[in-house]
Amino acid sequence: MARVIKIYDTTLRDGTQGEGVSFSMEDKVRLAERLDALGVHYIEGGWPGSNPKDMRFFRRIQDVPLKQARIAAFGATRRAGISAAADPSLQALVEARTPVATIFGKSWPFHVTHALQTTLPENLAMIADSVAFLAGRVEEVVYDAEHFFDGMKRDRDYALETLRAAERAGARVLVLCDTNGGTLPHEVAEIVREVRRHVRLPLGIHAHNDGECAVANSLAAVVEGVDHVQGTLNGFGERCGNANLVSIIPNLVLKLGVQAIPEPSLRELRDVARFAFELANRTPWQQQPFVGDSAFAHKAGMHVSAILKHPETYEHVTPERVGNHRRVLVSELAGRSNILWKAREYGLDLDKDTPEARRILDRLKQLEDEGYQFEGAEASFELLMERALGNHRPYFELEGYRVIVETRRSDPEPLAEATVRLQVKGIPEHTAATGNGPVNALDHALRKALEEFYPNLRELHLVDYKVRILDETSGTAARTRVLVTSGDGEETWGTVGVAHNIIDASWQALVDSVEYKLRRDERRSLR
Amino acid sequence: MARVIKIYDTTLRDGTQGEGVSFSMEDKVRLAERLDALGVHYIEGGWPGSNPKDMRFFRRIQDVPLKQARIAAFGATRRAGISAAADPSLQALVEARTPVATIFGKSWPFHVTHALQTTLPENLAMIADSVAFLAGRVEEVVYDAEHFFDGMKRDRDYALETLRAAERAGARVLVLCDTNGGTLPHEVAEIVREVRRHVRLPLGIHAHNDGECAVANSLAAVVEGVDHVQGTLNGFGERCGNANLVSIIPNLVLKLGVQAIPEPSLRELRDVARFAFELANRTPWQQQPFVGDSAFAHKAGMHVSAILKHPETYEHVTPERVGNHRRVLVSELAGRSNILWKAREYGLDLDKDTPEARRILDRLKQLEDEGYQFEGAEASFELLMERALGNHRPYFELEGYRVIVETRRSDPEPLAEATVRLQVKGIPEHTAATGNGPVNALDHALRKALEEFYPNLRELHLVDYKVRILDETSGTAARTRVLVTSGDGEETWGTVGVAHNIIDASWQALVDSVEYKLRRDERRSLR
Repeated sequence: MARVIKIYDTTLRDGTQGEGVSFSMEDKVRLAERLDALGVHYIEGGWPGSNPKDMRFFRRIQDVPLKQARIAAFGATRRAGISAAADPSLQALVEARTPVATIFGKSWPFHVTHALQTTLPENLAMIADSVAFLAGRVEEVVYDAEHFFDGMKRDRDYALETLRAAERAGARVLVLCDTNGGTLPHEVAEIVREVRRHVRLPLGIHAHNDGECAVANSLAAVVEGVDHVQGTLNGFGERCGNANLVSIIPNLVLKLGVQAIPEPSLRELRDVARFAFELANRTPWQQQPFVGDSAFAHKAGMHVSAILKHPETYEHVTPERVGNHRRVLVSELAGRSNILWKAREYGLDLDKDTPEARRILDRLKQLEDEGYQFEGAEASFELLMERALGNHRPYFELEGYRVIVETRRSDPEPLAEATVRLQVKGIPEHTAATGNGPVNALDHALRKALEEFYPNLRELHLVDYKVRILDETSGTAARTRVLVTSGDGEETWGTVGVAHNIIDASWQALVDSVEYKLRRDERRSLR
Repeated sequence: MARVIKIYDTTLRDGTQGEGVSFSMEDKVRLAERLDALGVHYIEGGWPGSNPKDMRFFRRIQDVPLKQARIAAFGATRRAGISAAADPSLQALVEARTPVATIFGKSWPFHVTHALQTTLPENLAMIADSVAFLAGRVEEVVYDAEHFFDGMKRDRDYALETLRAAERAGARVLVLCDTNGGTLPHEVAEIVREVRRHVRLPLGIHAHNDGECAVANSLAAVVEGVDHVQGTLNGFGERCGNANLVSIIPNLVLKLGVQAIPEPSLRELRDVARFAFELANRTPWQQQPFVGDSAFAHKAGMHVSAILKHPETYEHVTPERVGNHRRVLVSELAGRSNILWKAREYGLDLDKDTPEARRILDRLKQLEDEGYQFEGAEASFELLMERALGNHRPYFELEGYRVIVETRRSDPEPLAEATVRLQVKGIPEHTAATGNGPVNALDHALRKALEEFYPNLRELHLVDYKVRILDETSGTAARTRVLVTSGDGEETWGTVGVAHNIIDASWQALVDSVEYKLRRDERRSLR
C-alpha cells in the first residue's frame, strides 16, 4: 500500500496574510466545502485568539457537513509567566470547538530572548504546558515549530529540545516550519534526516516561498520521510506566499507515487484553484504549474505534431489528470466536453450531439469571447444553460432602469438614485430608491418592485461584490466584469455580468441573482 | 576563491516562447544592455535559422559595446542524412557571427525514432558532426542535451553516449535540459552525480517550471557540481516558464556563497526584473521572491516591532541587497518613517518633528483608514502632501456633476450621459457628454470643460483603470477604490479615489490626474 501524506490546508489562515488577500466569512465557508470535497485532510480555519472575527467562522462551520476534512484552529503557546489555563488565547482555541488545535512555539533562541523576551527553559515549559493543556481538551494537537530550520542552524540542540518538549506533552505531529522561507531544499533534506534521528513522532513541513523553493522544500521533506504537508491554494500567503498545494499535491501523487488526495480528485484541482483566485479577487496566475491557462499551451511549431501524436514527448503529465487541458489550437471538442461535464454537474442531461448541446456551446463561446467567466458564478452558468435550452421563464420583464448620481453643494457625498420600470405577471411596477452608490440604489429599487410579488426575496442578501476591469489598457472605456455573491441563509451562490458600462454589468449580475433565488425556491416548493 | 557559476540568460530566445511575451528588436537590444550591465556571462539572442527576424538582432548587437557578456546564437543539430556544412540552419548560426553557438540535440531514444524519425547511431553522428562543424567556426560551442533527464530515466547508456559524442567533438559545456519541466530536485541531484562519473567537461543545467521546481532544480544541480546555469528574467518561457534567474542569482550568491554576478550588481535585480516586465507589457509579479512589491511586506501584528529592531528575525535576506525595500503595511511608526522617506523621494524636505510632517501623517492615516492606498498612486500622494502643506492651488472649482445611466427599449446598451458644472479662473463652464459607461462619460465632460483653458490636457490619456471593492462583505453598499494610470507621452502617473459611490471614487482619481498634469506642466514652464 502506498504511503499516505496528510495534506493540511491553511489558505483560510496563513493564506489571508497575503497582501490583498481577504475572505469574507461566507467565502471561508465556501472554500472549506471545496477543500473538503477535494479531499484534503485538515483545514485550518483561522486564529480565534488573535482575530475575534475568526470565531464566527468556527461557530458557523459546526453546522456544515464535511465529508472527511478535520477543521483546525490556530494559536500560539501560552504567554511567559502564566499558566496555560489562564491564557486567553489558549482558551479561545478550546472555545473554537474544533477537533484539531495547532499551536506554534519558538525554536530559535534569538527569538525566545528577543521577541518573546523570556528565557530558554521558560520557552520549553511554555511549549510543554500548552500542548499538554490542549491535548486534554481537543482530539489532536499539531505542533508548529516556528523558524525551525533557522533555529537548527544556530543552536541544533535547543531546537531539537523544543520538539521533544512538544512530543512528550502529547502532540500528534511536529511540523518543521521554514518561517522566513529562505531555506534551500538540500538543507531541508539534511535537517529532516537529522531530526528523524531524535524524535519518533510523525513530522510535518510548513514552507514559505521567499527563495522560490517552497514546493521543492516540501517535496524534499517528504522524500526524507515527512508525512504531513502544510500549504495554501495557489501559494497565497505573506510576502512571497506559502508552499503551493496546487503544485505539491500532483507532484506527490503523480511523481512520488504517494497517496495525498484521491487520484480522481486531482481533476478538481484546476477548478478549486480558480475558485480561490475568484474569491480572493485576484487574477489567476496564467503560467501556474499544472492548472494555469498556459501550463499545457504549446506554441505552434516543430512540437505540435509530436504532441498530438505522443503528448508525453513534451508534457510531464497528462493535463486532464489535473483538470486542465492541452491548448494547441482552439479546440471545439475540448470546449464541448467541458460543457457536458458541467451540465452533468448541474443535473442537466445533454448528449454530445444534440442541438441543445451545440446551442449551449455556441452561447458559451460567445460569452467567453465577451469576457464572461463562470468560475465562481455557478448560478449564472446554470441560468445560461436553462436559457439556451429554452427552459427559462423570466420572473419579470424589465422595461427600463435609470440611475442618477449627482453632487450637491450642501453634501460632500453625491446622491445616488435609481428608478426601475418592469412588469410582473402583467402588472406594471415603477419604483425609485436611493443608495450608497449607483448599484446599491439599483438593488434597492429592484427589490422594491419585486418583493410585493415574491416576498421570499426579503431573505436574499448580497454578501460580496467584486469588480474586475478586462482589457485594462483601454482606460475608462474598458469592459467590466462584476461578480456578485448572494445568500439567503441556506445557500450562497455567485452570479456574473459583463459590460462596458459598470452599472449594466452590475445589473446583469443582480438580476441573475434574483432569478436564481426565485427559481430555486419554486423548484423546492414543487417537490 | 569562491567557485564561479556562469549565468546564461535566454530571455531573448526561450523567454519569448512564453504566452503573451514578445519583444521588438529594439527591446531585445535594450534588454541585452541591461543584462550585460547586471553581469551575466552569456546572452542568448535568438534562433537565426528558425526565425529570420532574429538575424537582424545579431547584426545590430555587433555595434553595441558590451562590458562582458558573450552573445550566443541558438540552433539544432544538422538534419539526418546530410552533412553539417550543407545544413542551412547551421550555416545561419555561423552567419550570426556570435562568439558562442549553442545547439541542442536529442538524448531520448523515443524522440530520435519518433520525432526525428531517424536511427540512434545517426543521431549520435548528427551531434558529433554539428558540434565539430561549429567548433571550427565560433569561439565556443555550448551543447544543450534536450530531454536529458527523461532520456536518462529511459535509456541511461544512450543518454550518456550523446553527451560523450558532443564532448569528443569539441563542445565546451554540456547542458542538461529538463525540457518538459517535470523532474524533481532529488532526481536532478542523482542524475547529475551519475553524469559526473562519465564525462569530464563542465556541466550546465536548463530547467523549466512545470512542477514549480525550476529554481530548486537549478540549485540542486549547482550543489552537485554544475557550473553553468541557464534561465530567463522573471521565469518567462513556454508553458509554466523557464528557471527564473531573478531568484536563482541571489540564491547562488547570498545562500550558496558562490560567484555568479558581482555582489553589488544584485542591487540592480529589482530594476532589471521590472524593466523586463515593462518591455513584455506584463504586470509585475507582486509576490515575486526577492524583488516583488510584497517580498518584504509585513502585515501589522506581533512581527512588526521585532522586524524593526532585528530584521533578520523575519527576513531571509536584507531587501536592499537585491534592490528591494521593506514595507510594513500598517503601523504608526513605520507610517511616519515611510512618509519621510517618500517626501524625500518627491523633493520635499520634512523633518520628523515639524507640524507639517504631523499634518501629512494625520491626513495620511485618516485616508488610509478610509481605504486609500498610495502604492501605485504616487501622483495622488504628491498632491496630498502639497494640500496638507497648503501649497496647493486648484486649477478649477467644481460646482457639481451629474451622471445618468439609462436603458432604452430600442438599444441593448444603456446610455451613459454626464454633465459637469465648474468654474475656471472665475468663468463658469457647463458641459455634457456621453460615453461607454458612466466614468467614461464623466471623463469626456470634464475634458470638454477644461481643454479650452488648458490645451495641454489634450495630451493626457488614461492608460489603465482598476476597481477594487473594499469591505467586500457589505455587498453593493461597500466602499470602492479606483486606481487610474494616466500618461501624456512623456511620463505615466497613478492616482486614486475612494468612496462608497464608484462614480465619486472615479471622479476623485480623474481630477487628481488632471491636477497632477497641469501642475507638472506649470512647474516645467517656470523653470
